[in-house]
Amino acid sequence: MKRNIKLVISYDGSRYNGWQRQGNTSKTIQEKIEQVLSKMTGEEIEIHGSGRTDAGVHAKGQVANFITDSKLPIEQIKNYLNQYLPNDIAVLEVMEVKERFHARLNAVKKRYNYTIWNDNVPNVFERNYMYTVEEPLDLEKMKQAADYLIGEHDFKSFCANKRMKKSTIRTIYAINIYSAGSKIVLSFEGNGFLYNMVRIMAGTLIEVGLGEITPEQIVRILERREREAAGALAPAKGLCLEKVWYEGERL
Amino acid sequence: MKRNIKLVISYDGSRYNGWQRQGNTSKTIQEKIEQVLSKMTGEEIEIHGSGRTDAGVHAKGQVANFITDSKLPIEQIKNYLNQYLPNDIAVLEVMEVKERFHARLNAVKKRYNYTIWNDNVPNVFERNYMYTVEEPLDLEKMKQAADYLIGEHDFKSFCANKRMKKSTIRTIYAINIYSAGSKIVLSFEGNGFLYNMVRIMAGTLIEVGLGEITPEQIVRILERREREAAGALAPAKGLCLEKVWYEGERL
Repeated sequence: MKRNIKLVISYDGSRYNGWQRQGNTSKTIQEKIEQVLSKMTGEEIEIHGSGRTDAGVHAKGQVANFITDSKLPIEQIKNYLNQYLPNDIAVLEVMEVKERFHARLNAVKKRYNYTIWNDNVPNVFERNYMYTVEEPLDLEKMKQAADYLIGEHDFKSFCANKRMKKSTIRTIYAINIYSAGSKIVLSFEGNGFLYNMVRIMAGTLIEVGLGEITPEQIVRILERREREAAGALAPAKGLCLEKVWYEGERL
Repeated sequence: MKRNIKLVISYDGSRYNGWQRQGNTSKTIQEKIEQVLSKMTGEEIEIHGSGRTDAGVHAKGQVANFITDSKLPIEQIKNYLNQYLPNDIAVLEVMEVKERFHARLNAVKKRYNYTIWNDNVPNVFERNYMYTVEEPLDLEKMKQAADYLIGEHDFKSFCANKRMKKSTIRTIYAINIYSAGSKIVLSFEGNGFLYNMVRIMAGTLIEVGLGEITPEQIVRILERREREAAGALAPAKGLCLEKVWYEGERL
């Protein structure tokens, strides 16, 4: 009897070439987890993540699932993974789910946080998890600009894949912008995100905060439907996949 | 006219062989800062830290001072340091102080925090700043044990230097133990600390929390005045020098 196992995973992406397996030569998070699971079960395990994260991007709540014949208790799978995974990958939750559950296909909502250190004195302890902007950012203007991004839009201007043939329409449910001391968090919730979309939105909002783009220009940037219209790609290290929601879960 | 400059420094000690300069071969925090200051002033600058921190120990408020002929404005010194220091060392404050100020000799109080991650699921983001103890710790017992350490005592049992010829009497003003989720902080304030004293106190309190030592045994451990009486040395990465106080400052 096959079992379908869901994992909630946290990782510091600094050392990795992103989530997705790329053959045997590169170091990815998917590979590391598959290696440990394959060793544990004696099967060749393939995991399905909720989506790729790029090189250097972090996660506090990445979700993946895999099919196995193994009868190992859930708690034992969790302990085995946390014992044998490198110390920059941790499995927070393990649970058995229905046969038809698929971490990517069934995801209905995701939250990504982009964290900025807005100070000219470096933060040494969180330096790998934040992007430093030394010049003061105007939070109010960034919030005004963010409002124009909320809702259903064609986000082609915020997509790094220029040959994207599928729909570039996505819905952003919320963008929360808040600060604590010199730390500024841009928190994006949506039904899905295009390639580099969160980092391009973050880069664009930073340019608004610096006064290089006005909040109102966001309307025109969306309308133009070309990558050149939007701001720069913000660095990977500030980005973290916080949470993935599924059908039937409270949104 | 000589100026005396005081620095408040933050560092991630993971990559360093501790604070103190050890000739030209080893990588220490003192050396890194002296190199940048010497380059900036064109003089051979020597800095005096409030005390050494061991390899792998961190700081949020290490204090040091140096004498210079340079007339550079304070703000410029701060910016220069933060621009040229490695990204795991930051200078939080720079100020001109009286000629007789000495960061080590005039220190009257220090606070060290020892941070424990008490969970069997790793914390990937703060893994270099906490010591993981998987078995549950009894905080109440640790607090009871800590109470026996407060006050003026001979801490010879908590000193790693067996040939220590100077006085091993120190005063602990407070030990605050608090938790937030799976994180436990042991915060020690005292007029001075012997070699490895905080890490041996932390290691001993952890053994109390695990039920291996009773709180009351602390009395006997202090009385014995030998290193073997106390618990194990807790790992360096959990330790952080939080703050140093000087005469005339509010304690």
